[in-house]
Amino acid sequence: MPRATIGDVARVAGVSKGTVSLAYSGNRPVAEETRRRVFAAAEELRWTPSQSARALATSRTGSVGLVIARRPDVIATDTFFPRFIAGCESALAEAGMGLMLNVVADQDAEAAVYARYAAGRVDGVILLDVEQEDTRPALVEDLGLTAVMLTGQRPDTGSPVALPEVWTDDAAAIEELVDLLVAEGHERIAHVSGPLNYVHAAARREAFSRAVRRHGLPADLMIEGDFSAASGRDATSRLLGGPTPWDDEGREDGEPHGPEPQDASAKRPSAIVYANDVMAIAGLSYARSIGLRVPEDLSVTGFDDSELSAHLSPGLTSVSTGALLRGEVAARTLLLALQGEAPSAVAVEGNHVVRRGSVAPPPTT
Amino acid sequence: MPRATIGDVARVAGVSKGTVSLAYSGNRPVAEETRRRVFAAAEELRWTPSQSARALATSRTGSVGLVIARRPDVIATDTFFPRFIAGCESALAEAGMGLMLNVVADQDAEAAVYARYAAGRVDGVILLDVEQEDTRPALVEDLGLTAVMLTGQRPDTGSPVALPEVWTDDAAAIEELVDLLVAEGHERIAHVSGPLNYVHAAARREAFSRAVRRHGLPADLMIEGDFSAASGRDATSRLLGGPTPWDDEGREDGEPHGPEPQDASAKRPSAIVYANDVMAIAGLSYARSIGLRVPEDLSVTGFDDSELSAHLSPGLTSVSTGALLRGEVAARTLLLALQGEAPSAVAVEGNHVVRRGSVAPPPTT
Repeated sequence: MPRATIGDVARVAGVSKGTVSLAYSGNRPVAEETRRRVFAAAEELRWTPSQSARALATSRTGSVGLVIARRPDVIATDTFFPRFIAGCESALAEAGMGLMLNVVADQDAEAAVYARYAAGRVDGVILLDVEQEDTRPALVEDLGLTAVMLTGQRPDTGSPVALPEVWTDDAAAIEELVDLLVAEGHERIAHVSGPLNYVHAAARREAFSRAVRRHGLPADLMIEGDFSAASGRDATSRLLGGPTPWDDEGREDGEPHGPEPQDASAKRPSAIVYANDVMAIAGLSYARSIGLRVPEDLSVTGFDDSELSAHLSPGLTSVSTGALLRGEVAARTLLLALQGEAPSAVAVEGNHVVRRGSVAPPPTT
Repeated sequence: MPRATIGDVARVAGVSKGTVSLAYSGNRPVAEETRRRVFAAAEELRWTPSQSARALATSRTGSVGLVIARRPDVIATDTFFPRFIAGCESALAEAGMGLMLNVVADQDAEAAVYARYAAGRVDGVILLDVEQEDTRPALVEDLGLTAVMLTGQRPDTGSPVALPEVWTDDAAAIEELVDLLVAEGHERIAHVSGPLNYVHAAARREAFSRAVRRHGLPADLMIEGDFSAASGRDATSRLLGGPTPWDDEGREDGEPHGPEPQDASAKRPSAIVYANDVMAIAGLSYARSIGLRVPEDLSVTGFDDSELSAHLSPGLTSVSTGALLRGEVAARTLLLALQGEAPSAVAVEGNHVVRRGSVAPPPTT
């Protein structure tokens, strides 16, 4: 049997050769269903794109590395990483490459991992959770590791170390959520952000602030969280003027709190935009525990669109972040970078707002 | 400065040399706080156990592999894996070893990964989600990969392929939950299991059935889920006799359902034991949407004790599974196996029931 060609794959998948190429290159997004057809056809015909074969041929180690520097319990409730990793995997597996994963406590430990990587364990790395004044791009360059960065905004072309960036426009999604809430009639909208040392969290907060001000509303209700359920609950308690969660110690009976302070409802937000779903779900649960109804008394939105959010009652309005696709594109961009061919930036059209029952007009007073 | 010894580490940590050794060997569990003190002292003194040094010396690749064969969206909401991986990591990092991670769709893809591993990518693997008639132990043996298995029950000594097993007694935790509910007065207790092809899910369901029958109660309320929020919601809908979630299509307004059928409350369970937290949270939310109060009308329990569960109102009663510790011990056992020194089984005292507000006496009728 002669070796299959890209034309054979295109014929079996019912698409053009260009689409097959795009499905593999990650240079432009391809519809999920099309991508699946292409991959199925390639698998059936045992065809491998030469680009991937080249990636493996030019690789010293057959592996790329991914370091996640967050607390394990926070990672555990963050639904972005597993999907992102699965996406990386699917692109790497095609190229016969493997993913080396490290979960570490902080950036010092992360730097130590890169030093081990550079000693011959991986060829390249994907940098996550980029920080303001991030020292890692310079570090990996010094170590001779090829790298790409995952970010939530259009690359700043003035950046001193120019790593290829795989980026998604998180700010636009936040602005769309604010527009949606304003269209429903909300005038007191709060934001619970992620840790502001992360560029993506700071950018989302900045987008929130810009959007509410654009509507002539005050941007005074912003609290920094850390993506954990605990911080979502705590921030919500502060925003709603109820007792702090620490007053809850020993309260295990599920009883609602006592009456709320008289002056709380005036300043209280009627909607809260959370930077991830876990904080939103914890916040929603807290709001109910002090007698507020969702969405009648309080609208809430999340970010990440976890599987759980679709199956709550009401469902949680959230932002689907295309984590799987972003993983695929990030890995493909790294494979290209390993061959010296990476574009300086790749936009992934990953985000879209998913509207569910947790958003409604504010209560009439 | 002379090189630190195990005695130096013991002195700084305030424990015996035997405890330092145990903290690293995984042969017997060591209290979490003690383990932390030992590791902190070792880090301060830059001491590495010779066992770890030997593991790296005898390794061909410096890596061990972990394959997770589940749907990415299900993995994403399962809080076990990230903590388990972080635990593996901490043990491997000490030994200078790395973790190769693969997330694949099914067991065929998993087998293909082991074949690649065996071609020189990793020295050994940790097998998760052991199935009835699992073919992987024989496969990895054929491929010449050293392996250990993670399981949820005492090893069956009659097993044909005897891989070292790192096991936790999941059944005991389920029985403790049932005992707790019966002590509160519940007589109609249901179980929503994981996929029964997994040995751990089947064992937990068996434990549930045994426990309710031991109390003279019927074991007729058992539904198989797949660990996803969707299946938790669906199973709860069937158990509570309400409309199925598919009736919900297009319902995005958060309104409660109409009145429940007259005969539903008689057969309806007053408590549901779920096989993970995500199914429990989706089920709890569904129950509320049809007008039931938790815990006054329905008690619910989860399994895994995710960070979110502690910060809901009421908090979710769950089983802390010691995922981090199990990861550490599994990795240490694999390191020993790579040196031909692994015990045939290692018990990890990981599970304990965490009681929170989601459990209360049944409603009086």
